[in-house]
Amino acid sequence: MTVEIGFDRNATRVEALNALLWQIMNEYSVSDDEGPLADAIETYLRNLGHLTVRRHGDTVVASTDLGRDRRVILAGHIDTVPVIDNFPPKWLEPGDPLIRADVAEVHPGERVLWGRGATDMKPSDAVMLYLAATLTEPKFDLTYVFYDHEEVAAPLNGLRKVVEAHPDWIQGDFAIIGEPTSCGIEGGCNGTIRFDVICHGVAAHSARAWMGENAIHKAADVLNRLNAYEPQTITVEGLDYREGLNATLISGGKGTNVIPDECRVHVNYRFAPDKTLAEAKALMIGVDAGAELGNGEHVATGGVFDGYGIEMKDESPAARPGMDTPLARSLAALAKERTGRDPLAKLGWTDVARFSQLGIPAVNMGAGDALLAHKHDEQVPESDLIRLADILEEWLS
Amino acid sequence: MTVEIGFDRNATRVEALNALLWQIMNEYSVSDDEGPLADAIETYLRNLGHLTVRRHGDTVVASTDLGRDRRVILAGHIDTVPVIDNFPPKWLEPGDPLIRADVAEVHPGERVLWGRGATDMKPSDAVMLYLAATLTEPKFDLTYVFYDHEEVAAPLNGLRKVVEAHPDWIQGDFAIIGEPTSCGIEGGCNGTIRFDVICHGVAAHSARAWMGENAIHKAADVLNRLNAYEPQTITVEGLDYREGLNATLISGGKGTNVIPDECRVHVNYRFAPDKTLAEAKALMIGVDAGAELGNGEHVATGGVFDGYGIEMKDESPAARPGMDTPLARSLAALAKERTGRDPLAKLGWTDVARFSQLGIPAVNMGAGDALLAHKHDEQVPESDLIRLADILEEWLS
Repeated sequence: MTVEIGFDRNATRVEALNALLWQIMNEYSVSDDEGPLADAIETYLRNLGHLTVRRHGDTVVASTDLGRDRRVILAGHIDTVPVIDNFPPKWLEPGDPLIRADVAEVHPGERVLWGRGATDMKPSDAVMLYLAATLTEPKFDLTYVFYDHEEVAAPLNGLRKVVEAHPDWIQGDFAIIGEPTSCGIEGGCNGTIRFDVICHGVAAHSARAWMGENAIHKAADVLNRLNAYEPQTITVEGLDYREGLNATLISGGKGTNVIPDECRVHVNYRFAPDKTLAEAKALMIGVDAGAELGNGEHVATGGVFDGYGIEMKDESPAARPGMDTPLARSLAALAKERTGRDPLAKLGWTDVARFSQLGIPAVNMGAGDALLAHKHDEQVPESDLIRLADILEEWLS
Repeated sequence: MTVEIGFDRNATRVEALNALLWQIMNEYSVSDDEGPLADAIETYLRNLGHLTVRRHGDTVVASTDLGRDRRVILAGHIDTVPVIDNFPPKWLEPGDPLIRADVAEVHPGERVLWGRGATDMKPSDAVMLYLAATLTEPKFDLTYVFYDHEEVAAPLNGLRKVVEAHPDWIQGDFAIIGEPTSCGIEGGCNGTIRFDVICHGVAAHSARAWMGENAIHKAADVLNRLNAYEPQTITVEGLDYREGLNATLISGGKGTNVIPDECRVHVNYRFAPDKTLAEAKALMIGVDAGAELGNGEHVATGGVFDGYGIEMKDESPAARPGMDTPLARSLAALAKERTGRDPLAKLGWTDVARFSQLGIPAVNMGAGDALLAHKHDEQVPESDLIRLADILEEWLS
């Protein structure tokens, strides 16, 4: 089946937005199956005529080339998490029992689009497709990025791949990612590192425990250090980032009657964007421990886990929110006026950090409630789609 | 192949012992495959004519019925742990490189029997088979028990099964189990209980750790209590029992980015025979916690783990050594005279505890070095076989 995306040029703005959203919601695009939707988006964008359209894998990049002094990137992933009896989508009329009580309360008497991708993040994609067609004289040059494989492991991420393969396609002064924020601004993100803290012992039969050395008993000290640590909340560019240091896994022992010779505590440190990755690691394991991804066990030379064996498992830098730039400030002011929402810190790691690594300030701003993402009853009220279009259209014009 | 056991009545004592040992060593009898060896032993014992022979599964019980005022039980398991390139057996002449240095040092110029079961515990079985044939006028009535499935899970144990099915077959005033002790006496055994100490928490995404409650962090207190505990050495009937309290396993967490909602510390308490099982449990979890095998989680009402969830996993009582009985004292005196070895406490749990539960004092006494049991180069010097026969023959005559 060939999918087609488009809208009648005589349609109203609301009709056009609804048509685009309905079309892409009806295209199944669980991660790994984005191909047909990427094809349709590529064809649609090429047919507009005023954009330079490029494609890498199932990621489509379309740019204006108007010679403006600044360029804004609008990015949205086109894949969804797997379907749970929530595809194809449905428009729900007011009073429909499938409308969640919390949605109905905030949006009484309003139609709701229900189904996989209804918040994460096809409404924002629809708005971007609409703007790509209608914003022919924007204030900034624009680059639209529709990318694949956001909902799966990082190495598959389409945005990551296009940045690596074609860094010149992804350049700009500011980026907006359409992750659901109910049209508010969520900026930056905490960094995250994960590592094993390793206690060593000597195995022995537990009937002769004194011939061994109990590695699990040694882990008491590791857990005591975790309990003694007081997580901070750090304000960066006006947004509050709450840090956290937690053991998320623990394992040790080889048998019920064997003194354990190893115990591993898997620790996750979430750190605010006032710190570089190196600074965050130093706080945990010292400046020169040498533990890097994939290089095995190294002894911590300082920090919280000074003296213990460390095996690094994951390292992702934090991203500053970029709220100190004029572009971010003006977008934040407009979002506040339209939604009443002050900018918030993003705590989980998102693709804004990828832009941050490229030196491009980036924020999340999208239609739909983030708390409904990935749920089986994912849904978005019609007005949220319109509101996002209003804000972006005004800010970009 | 039909196995036959026997010896030439004109053979010397040493030749007879060697012949019996060689025959049963050449019969493969890894746990589950004891049948042919049990058949051969049953036939041999029946053919002797002066014993009442009974069989249950692959356990053979043979008794004298001489009207003596006391009865001694001699028990030996006939199964072995799995073979590791050490079957069939070999006689090694002095200087053979397969003779372990530690064995050669203590027994210079001596032949050594090498192979699976050479210490655990076919030499003791051979001595018992020899005594069954030759000790027709013992000082005590005698019951020989050759049993299966000692080297595997307790529910399969042949001694356990025959005690349950035919309690009248296993009666006496004293029991000797032929586990390897280099012909010394090892008495009683520590009891052992194992249980999970359970910490509960509330799951949350680790980017929002404050919305959860970290169960692994709570386990710090459990490990601190283990570290604070000072294990005792307790003297019972002159033998020293060294206790131990150890975490042997720990596990917790559901994912690298999830605040863990449960952490389990698996604890093993090895306790001396001055305590009943109930007393040992009370020291760990209080007198009335109610945690029993298979009844799920109960909160400890006292003891080391007061306040934590407890799930009982294993309970085995200790066994007093019975060294205060005249039979034990006279055997110990003879063993000391012949081996120079004082009686020692047995620390691991063995089948002597089964006799203890039946009210029969029991000790371990057998040929071969316990430290070689289960090893790939399991071996026994010829003189140890003779020495065990000497001691038992003298003591029983």
